[in-house]
Amino acid sequence: VTYVRNAWYVAAWAHELRDELPLGVRVLDEPIVIWRNGRGDLAAFEDYCLHRLARLSLGRCEGERLRCMYHGWLYDSTGHVVEIPGQARVPGGARLRTYPVTERHSWLWVWMGDHSCADEKLIPPVVGFDRAEPESVYAHGQLDYAAEARLVNDNLLDLSHVSFLHAASFRMSDVWAREPSKITPLERGLRSERWIRGEGTLGELGTSDLVDTYFCYEMYVPGVLMMTVHTYPVGTAQALKSQPPDLSRPPGQFTTQAITPVTSKTARYFYTMGRRRRGSETTYDMTVTDQAFAEDKMMIEAQQQNIDSAPARRFIPTAADQASVLFKRLVETMARAEGSVEASTDAQCTPVHP
Amino acid sequence: VTYVRNAWYVAAWAHELRDELPLGVRVLDEPIVIWRNGRGDLAAFEDYCLHRLARLSLGRCEGERLRCMYHGWLYDSTGHVVEIPGQARVPGGARLRTYPVTERHSWLWVWMGDHSCADEKLIPPVVGFDRAEPESVYAHGQLDYAAEARLVNDNLLDLSHVSFLHAASFRMSDVWAREPSKITPLERGLRSERWIRGEGTLGELGTSDLVDTYFCYEMYVPGVLMMTVHTYPVGTAQALKSQPPDLSRPPGQFTTQAITPVTSKTARYFYTMGRRRRGSETTYDMTVTDQAFAEDKMMIEAQQQNIDSAPARRFIPTAADQASVLFKRLVETMARAEGSVEASTDAQCTPVHP
Amino acid sequence: VTYVRNAWYVAAWAHELRDELPLGVRVLDEPIVIWRNGRGDLAAFEDYCLHRLARLSLGRCEGERLRCMYHGWLYDSTGHVVEIPGQARVPGGARLRTYPVTERHSWLWVWMGDHSCADEKLIPPVVGFDRAEPESVYAHGQLDYAAEARLVNDNLLDLSHVSFLHAASFRMSDVWAREPSKITPLERGLRSERWIRGEGTLGELGTSDLVDTYFCYEMYVPGVLMMTVHTYPVGTAQALKSQPPDLSRPPGQFTTQAITPVTSKTARYFYTMGRRRRGSETTYDMTVTDQAFAEDKMMIEAQQQNIDSAPARRFIPTAADQASVLFKRLVETMARAEGSVEASTDAQCTPVHP
Repeated sequence: VTYVRNAWYVAAWAHELRDELPLGVRVLDEPIVIWRNGRGDLAAFEDYCLHRLARLSLGRCEGERLRCMYHGWLYDSTGHVVEIPGQARVPGGARLRTYPVTERHSWLWVWMGDHSCADEKLIPPVVGFDRAEPESVYAHGQLDYAAEARLVNDNLLDLSHVSFLHAASFRMSDVWAREPSKITPLERGLRSERWIRGEGTLGELGTSDLVDTYFCYEMYVPGVLMMTVHTYPVGTAQALKSQPPDLSRPPGQFTTQAITPVTSKTARYFYTMGRRRRGSETTYDMTVTDQAFAEDKMMIEAQQQNIDSAPARRFIPTAADQASVLFKRLVETMARAEGSVEASTDAQCTPVHP
Repeated sequence: VTYVRNAWYVAAWAHELRDELPLGVRVLDEPIVIWRNGRGDLAAFEDYCLHRLARLSLGRCEGERLRCMYHGWLYDSTGHVVEIPGQARVPGGARLRTYPVTERHSWLWVWMGDHSCADEKLIPPVVGFDRAEPESVYAHGQLDYAAEARLVNDNLLDLSHVSFLHAASFRMSDVWAREPSKITPLERGLRSERWIRGEGTLGELGTSDLVDTYFCYEMYVPGVLMMTVHTYPVGTAQALKSQPPDLSRPPGQFTTQAITPVTSKTARYFYTMGRRRRGSETTYDMTVTDQAFAEDKMMIEAQQQNIDSAPARRFIPTAADQASVLFKRLVETMARAEGSVEASTDAQCTPVHP
Repeated sequence: VTYVRNAWYVAAWAHELRDELPLGVRVLDEPIVIWRNGRGDLAAFEDYCLHRLARLSLGRCEGERLRCMYHGWLYDSTGHVVEIPGQARVPGGARLRTYPVTERHSWLWVWMGDHSCADEKLIPPVVGFDRAEPESVYAHGQLDYAAEARLVNDNLLDLSHVSFLHAASFRMSDVWAREPSKITPLERGLRSERWIRGEGTLGELGTSDLVDTYFCYEMYVPGVLMMTVHTYPVGTAQALKSQPPDLSRPPGQFTTQAITPVTSKTARYFYTMGRRRRGSETTYDMTVTDQAFAEDKMMIEAQQQNIDSAPARRFIPTAADQASVLFKRLVETMARAEGSVEASTDAQCTPVHP
């Protein structure tokens, strides 16, 4: 499976990183320790002490330094060894591999590629707790998948599955599969948008009212999704001649999701769900969404097992796979461009247009 | 390990397959979905949707068709794609691999080889619920082995182990090992029969009465065993000069067992036990048999681990292994005959005589 | 990883082996059955019945013989087959591989190399129950590590980790890392000794009294450690000009530990802890030591995972690694000497001087 390295990957929730306590994560099968020094600055290292490969995430933050707690090697925030207990001399070249890391919108993001390309402006404007608004209610969480991240991305890129896989949870007709979405390539991703006419409200329990809904999401490399859901009285789509509604209006629902490859066969799925408050409720009711997430997880993990049993088999693309195929090509084009980087060590960070 | 493909494998109990709900099984390491359409007909497919390898056993029966519930591909009972949601055209050649499947004597049987050879007359006349008689009591069940099917077959083919492995459960002397069984080759298997003189009744609790017992079983490829147990007063064997008794008389006990290779290192063991009713009991008392089954399982799974630790080691054949060696040669001869089939694609279904 | 075969490995606690019941262990990834015959003599065989690789440790002791309880093969205490049920002839050459085995100081020791070199005088004088003295209290136990034995050996060979890894349990300053130990090569191991001045007593709860402590341990191939701990009033080390105290005096604490490679990625850690009785206590209080052992286990198992993730990476030796490096070289020298043995089948048991 091909991965883009010049990208910000969601490594963890920001609140998982507590003062003084380094945090161990795994991204693209690389163990990484993230820590915050006494001045509040973040740093991310490979999670291997140079001495004997102990885990630095079992270490201790000491002011602006990180100490391995096996035999006490001390590192500064650039990954240089600054102290080896019992030994006056510190080998000059000893330095950990580091990763650009930043906190934004409640997530910790790690850049897996060329440091000189690590531009924080490439982080999509996802919805985190920092953007919580009093008129909305939220839920957030994460799921660990025994499946590669690409399969979860594909799930989000082809929502025709909503009609089938989520028949018992979202209870929609085959409308999601009948008509295609409108797909627009973006700089490092794509936009998918569409009307769903005369169905129930997504994820709502106990209402049988029908609505016209406009679903619009953007999906960015490596796997960050932002979706808004605008609902209208039945007939609105027709009145608008299937053109988009006014998307500057606040959406009724919205979600931000990120899929991070942990190993080549596992992924972590981070999500925030939001909805405009309608009464006195204080949180987003996850009952239906949790059921849908469980349906996704069961199907995708079984799909992974099938792929492992028959690695030579190929997928058959369909009309509904348009976004999935486009995204796959984008990833491959970007990864290929990086390939030459890795060969020549010259940085080539030019954004790739799909 | 060598397997015969032109054979009926027990895939499941018939009652495991419920209307509308496809059933996922694994035979010879191939995932298979079995389903029954609205007319009651069975079909078996490889359990991979052609689209993206999702599991069809997570799908839904729709009349005479089976729908994949990931993105909705619809298959007829011959494995042809008949509908792809959102796409008018269906690729003509798209077809699932199918397996001949039938229900007989309470089991679902799948034929793993050449379709044109799939003759239901090759299914041995095992005892299922369909043959339950009021004068008998029954028990049935299944065990999953962390061992390859061949090791379980070998266990059944060399009953000298009864004297040792089942010393604590069946409590017999070394009589099972002292004298050989009479082995007769059959078309696709073998018969093994013998007198056991002056021992207790197999699997009976709380009786110390001694009997002469005639054990007779047939074992068929790939691993289907049918055994009858006739008991007589002590002295009968001698009076009959060790010749068989009248086997047309109903046996006191009988059992049918099938061992199915699930993967190359796991097997599923299906069994039915029966005994003529002697009082008011309504089921077969499994107390002793369950203990014996647990002894088999512990020994064979440890044997598998030992084989994995020392894959180069060979078994040493003994007098007691006669049936096991004969069966092994039969399997190899049949598999070799199939080999030419697979190479030439010409069917060669001539039964192989051992 | 390199292992010395001409060495006594601790296979089990002697009390694990009960009369009549053979005991299955695994050393250097070889399954071994240890049993005691009716005369009390020990024998150790490879744990594979020659017939079909069943596990002899599931067998039964019959006087001076061991019977496989699958099909009843019977072995004498030299590993020769003496009976095959149902078969008059026993193949003459059929013999199990045997291992020299002995019980000493509460442990069962197995020699993994050339039989002619198996000298019991090479067993270090460890402290077992046989040496329990009324003026001392004891604790003993074992831990299974998901890590190769070498990593546990390394842990014991570099006690600078006490200051860091055991900061929360033993609560010592960085004194363990500041100054080196005095290392002395021994015939099949090494001695490490040192003063620790003005710290608390190792592993003692609820006392804040400071002491000068003299730690002295010997570590023998393949991984047997014996340590004594002598405590004195603060100032004693200085008064002795850092020379050793009178080590013939009974130590305040002592411990014997053995690390046995089970597989190439797992190890079993056996330990006895002892301390001179100070009041009416009847056992060694393991509270602090158990916490320290848990710290070791967490760190070392994570280290193993890191090594597995990055097998090409090398350790960087430091001043504190002196004993570890010396021991590693000793193991390599001894193993290399054995290499020629295995090639020529001539025994070369000359002890190797480091």
